[in-house]
Amino acid sequence: MKNITLLGATGSIGLQTLDIIREHNDEFRLFAIAFGKNVDKAIDIIESFQPKKIVVQEESIRQKLLSYNDQLTILLGNEGMEEISADPDTDVLVNAVMGSIGLSATITAIRHKKQIAIANKETLVTAGHIVMAEAKKYGVDLLPVDSEHSAIYQALNGEHAKDVHKLILTASGGSFRDKKRSELHGVTVNDALNHPNWSMGAKITIDSATMMNKGLEVIEAHWLFDMAYDKIDVIQHKESIIHSMVEYVDNSVIAQLGTPDMRVPIQYALTYPDRLALPASKRLDLVEISTLHFDRMDTERFPCLGFAYEAGNKGGSLPTVLNAANEAAVDLFLKEKITFLEIEEVIADAMAHYPFIDQPDISAIQKIDQEVRQQIYEKF
Amino acid sequence: MKNITLLGATGSIGLQTLDIIREHNDEFRLFAIAFGKNVDKAIDIIESFQPKKIVVQEESIRQKLLSYNDQLTILLGNEGMEEISADPDTDVLVNAVMGSIGLSATITAIRHKKQIAIANKETLVTAGHIVMAEAKKYGVDLLPVDSEHSAIYQALNGEHAKDVHKLILTASGGSFRDKKRSELHGVTVNDALNHPNWSMGAKITIDSATMMNKGLEVIEAHWLFDMAYDKIDVIQHKESIIHSMVEYVDNSVIAQLGTPDMRVPIQYALTYPDRLALPASKRLDLVEISTLHFDRMDTERFPCLGFAYEAGNKGGSLPTVLNAANEAAVDLFLKEKITFLEIEEVIADAMAHYPFIDQPDISAIQKIDQEVRQQIYEKF
Repeated sequence: MKNITLLGATGSIGLQTLDIIREHNDEFRLFAIAFGKNVDKAIDIIESFQPKKIVVQEESIRQKLLSYNDQLTILLGNEGMEEISADPDTDVLVNAVMGSIGLSATITAIRHKKQIAIANKETLVTAGHIVMAEAKKYGVDLLPVDSEHSAIYQALNGEHAKDVHKLILTASGGSFRDKKRSELHGVTVNDALNHPNWSMGAKITIDSATMMNKGLEVIEAHWLFDMAYDKIDVIQHKESIIHSMVEYVDNSVIAQLGTPDMRVPIQYALTYPDRLALPASKRLDLVEISTLHFDRMDTERFPCLGFAYEAGNKGGSLPTVLNAANEAAVDLFLKEKITFLEIEEVIADAMAHYPFIDQPDISAIQKIDQEVRQQIYEKF
Repeated sequence: MKNITLLGATGSIGLQTLDIIREHNDEFRLFAIAFGKNVDKAIDIIESFQPKKIVVQEESIRQKLLSYNDQLTILLGNEGMEEISADPDTDVLVNAVMGSIGLSATITAIRHKKQIAIANKETLVTAGHIVMAEAKKYGVDLLPVDSEHSAIYQALNGEHAKDVHKLILTASGGSFRDKKRSELHGVTVNDALNHPNWSMGAKITIDSATMMNKGLEVIEAHWLFDMAYDKIDVIQHKESIIHSMVEYVDNSVIAQLGTPDMRVPIQYALTYPDRLALPASKRLDLVEISTLHFDRMDTERFPCLGFAYEAGNKGGSLPTVLNAANEAAVDLFLKEKITFLEIEEVIADAMAHYPFIDQPDISAIQKIDQEVRQQIYEKF
């Protein structure tokens, strides 16, 4: 029986993680959760799973939960997330919080040698140099939950790193893949939220439409798999059936395929190196699907992908600037304060103007992260 | 440096194995060869690679070789193949002979714990129960050279057998995939030899057109991967880019992909668990290929595939009857003594009439093999 500590329990990945724990309650037990604002969902989770510890971000949320049940153990903020990540009873940390607030919990879990399933890509994007150095030092393997990185992890299984020639990430193309750039001027928030293949949270769905999601995944892949940026390709594959691939030195390519169901990579991160049945998910039927398409991924059509390669290649503080500017810009777009195409302009502007730092430490990363957001919110 | 002993050196797989030895002459050395009738090619090989021992099947061929160079060490027949397979200097046996004559050499190599790259599918089809029992007893792993089985071997790498749900073999559909059954009456040998994707020997190209090749592969997969027949599916995939797949219990599917180049699986069998560069082969470019198609495989359209499932499921002597009848029928078709559709009739007739034996030993298998062929040749 593995005790799971789940950060971001009420989000899309969090809820699907709970599906898996419910399905395999002879293998997994929910030990602790952290969530943001969704008290109603959190109470459902607490009633179903009886976690021993709960972390919230604000005192007001803590009070609401206590008024529902004053016997609950409720911790606060980053320190609370660090405490449950380090707890001796935590076997596996699933870090599915959104944005860069997941960083210190991940570092804490590494230092306590936990099995870590990481769905919080900002942790690696902004502080990959720190996180991976710690992971190496403590001999901890980060198990990716993103379908693309899980695919690569599975395609690397049993192989030697020296034999890898290239990683090939696939991209569905997002909500606007069939639109030209000139057709993006009038698009609405609802248009952008209508992803063709995957059912995901709002922020990541917008990131898919701008292709920033794939850009962040390229940076994440660079860190997770210790791979140079010119050895990471992105191709468009609109059916999202091949989730990603590894090309080896002998030109053999290993791919992981499946229906678009995040529970598969989530469960794999919990069960690795074993697998468990997942009866609720749909089996892949290639005969029914009949055709898979592949196309070139174009950084002129999708400038955010180019921004991410640029930030990744230059390194230092630039990925943090990229990520913070993107999070602020997507938030402003979702609040209808800027247009879809202005997301790119906001990011390009922040990358061009925010001062560059070569080897930012965690406090520098947090400072840059806050300042970049603040400067953007002040403008709009 | 690994010493390679190559049975079937002048055939298609044999010559491609030699390409790899030539390419990686710092890793591999040709120690011994066996070949059938092609003396000119054999002399080329002997001049280039200077193998220490040579095996031929007939005294007349031995005399021809000796007249070219009377210093050569030349052995004869099955005993010769067994001797070089067991030779202490042999590190890897590549068994690429055609038909069932490769059996005793494979058994010999297993008993001498050699690394075995097996391209001789008849060995497993006719005597899978014997070969795999020996392999298990001596702790020897058979490395498949067929692109489909190599794909499955690669897709299983790092995984646990208990987590496998299904094997999915892909089939190009062969030379006549776009023809209806009713259009097969007048087809010629040349039509049948025109395979859309792979450049292979004549016998296997005809087997692709009848789908017997895939049927033999299903039986081979059953033995190599210890998988029940209802857990082995065949789907049509006309581009031959996905070479085969493994579906796991969590619905995750791992596939091996590549351009159609037999040197990739041959080399993998020589280098496993490592990989080496293969500069002469073409890299897979899915964007250039653009589209992959999948379709149902139909045993009414391709009765030979159904015959193979039937023979595999019933077991005993039936796979030997299937294989011997098929080899005789394909030979008669290539000699234009029977029509393309008569190949199926010859096989069905042999399977229906030859007496069934439950657990044939090697001498029984050899007797059945000879008698079935003889009976067929007497009729035509």
